[in-house]
Amino acid sequence: MSASTVSPQAVAASLKDTWSPRVVAAFDEHYVKVARLHGTFTWHCHDDEDELFYVLSGRLRIEMADETVELQAGEMYVVPRGVMHNPIAEEECQVMLIERKSTLHTGNVVTEQTRSIDDQL
Amino acid sequence: MSASTVSPQAVAASLKDTWSPRVVAAFDEHYVKVARLHGTFTWHCHDDEDELFYVLSGRLRIEMADETVELQAGEMYVVPRGVMHNPIAEEECQVMLIERKSTLHTGNVVTEQTRSIDDQL
Repeated sequence: MSASTVSPQAVAASLKDTWSPRVVAAFDEHYVKVARLHGTFTWHCHDDEDELFYVLSGRLRIEMADETVELQAGEMYVVPRGVMHNPIAEEECQVMLIERKSTLHTGNVVTEQTRSIDDQL
Repeated sequence: MSASTVSPQAVAASLKDTWSPRVVAAFDEHYVKVARLHGTFTWHCHDDEDELFYVLSGRLRIEMADETVELQAGEMYVVPRGVMHNPIAEEECQVMLIERKSTLHTGNVVTEQTRSIDDQL
């Protein structure tokens, strides 16, 4: 691995806390983040921003108002802007996320799980 | 896999041609694409757009004016806007790319390898 390349899976595996995203790369107006997920997050939405989930390991269920998707490792899903969603990882799951730099990861809801961008960098 | 989820690796593996990206998802102003690469592409740059490479399988070398990066499967690199670069896959490599919807994948250069967005959709 060159100095300036990054292994999202290695960074995700090194995280101490669940539901605490870490920024691993930036491009244009977006951040690539990784996170360890376990349990249930919180219902929220992003009014003007789509959110990409890519599962690195484990499985992730994303409940939405009108449908639920189940992602295996290596699978991707984009939650469209404005759609209420709630990620649920019954067993530990590691994910890569792509969000606009301005996106608060808990969307329109601030909870104990909310982490500032400074915490994620 | 739910109907609306996608496995980038499965789509990449199904592609007949090398250097012919296929769009697998869209978010905000960006496309997620996959491609099979083998051999040498062409030196080019994107003046106003960063380009994200994530290697799904195999290895990829990206030569740039001032440095060269070597990516293994599971590793990521963002080529900054304005940086001349040339991807080289000595053996077959499958990649996920993130580019702005307006990005021509051969950047400022049009070659026999250039594919229109319609070809990629």
